Amino acid sequence: MPRVSDADLASRRGEILVGARRCFAEFGYDGATVARLEAATGKSRGAIFHHFGSKEGLFLALAEEDAERMAEVTATSGLVEVMRDVVAHPDEHDWLGTRLEVVGRLRTDAEFRRRWLAHQEHLDAAVVSRLRETAESGALREDRSPAALRLLLELMLDGVITRVATGRSTESMAEVLDIIEETVRRPPPRA
Amino acid sequence: MPRVSDADLASRRGEILVGARRCFAEFGYDGATVARLEAATGKSRGAIFHHFGSKEGLFLALAEEDAERMAEVTATSGLVEVMRDVVAHPDEHDWLGTRLEVVGRLRTDAEFRRRWLAHQEHLDAAVVSRLRETAESGALREDRSPAALRLLLELMLDGVITRVATGRSTESMAEVLDIIEETVRRPPPRA
Repeated sequence: MPRVSDADLASRRGEILVGARRCFAEFGYDGATVARLEAATGKSRGAIFHHFGSKEGLFLALAEEDAERMAEVTATSGLVEVMRDVVAHPDEHDWLGTRLEVVGRLRTDAEFRRRWLAHQEHLDAAVVSRLRETAESGALREDRSPAALRLLLELMLDGVITRVATGRSTESMAEVLDIIEETVRRPPPRA
Repeated sequence: MPRVSDADLASRRGEILVGARRCFAEFGYDGATVARLEAATGKSRGAIFHHFGSKEGLFLALAEEDAERMAEVTATSGLVEVMRDVVAHPDEHDWLGTRLEVVGRLRTDAEFRRRWLAHQEHLDAAVVSRLRETAESGALREDRSPAALRLLLELMLDGVITRVATGRSTESMAEVLDIIEETVRRPPPRA
């Protein structure tokens, strides 16, 4: 049997993720049956399960991709920029809706919860480190605890995702994100 | 057949709602089968469907109860107080989780969406009217549009519900809600 290179394996894994994201977005979590996942990814169930173990593993790998992307944007431009990104990509709404459906399981499924939180660790670390840098540069407001400013940003991100995922109006969103950015920053010195 | 009084009907309707909320919280939306709803409410499926038409109708009636309660608190104390309320009642987390699961359907089910939004109308009206009153009393900041301040509050409420529903830490939440309250208000005059 010919040996499959690591590069081939990585590229197959990537192809499955792209097709699966589309499939979850179209049919929802429960509606994304194994047969539909095969059709959407062009890969056999054997290949899918080899890479991801289960449908849950596949879903969590997609959530991890999100978290990685958000962590990158956070590291260079902050979490408010992540929110601007979410608002700017209406084509991702459907996937965000699936994400929202599944997040409900965090409260009832301890193992799912453990895996989900582990996948969010890079993003959490990026948020903490970005806030530390902003504080060190003197741009973070100092009359409130960094923990509260971090939670404020995280709640806003959840709020923005819910809003976009449910397809409600995002008018005024740009102004809201400006307000949030201003709120966590140190006010300019009084004239 | 003895005539059932309006008061009896209203009280039966109320009993069904109490039991159904508990049932959805325990089993999730899909897990709350008609048999389980009968057991939790102590009422026959005939009685349940007489009052609410369908399981979806029952769920939406519970969401409407939430919206009514939130509208009352908003009218007297503002939407930030609603968020404080959500955080103060961990016993409602399970129901909020079900709410979160189902909200994912807003994007895929136009009829559900229409009914959900109709049920939220009282709350929307209460938010608008509270903001108008705050503005008239001179307590609302004036350098930002009322529409943006309203959206900011609504996004925060969604964020708080998601946080609490998924059982993640709410440490620092009190401080965050103080920051939000301060953010929509007019700053005190400079000394």
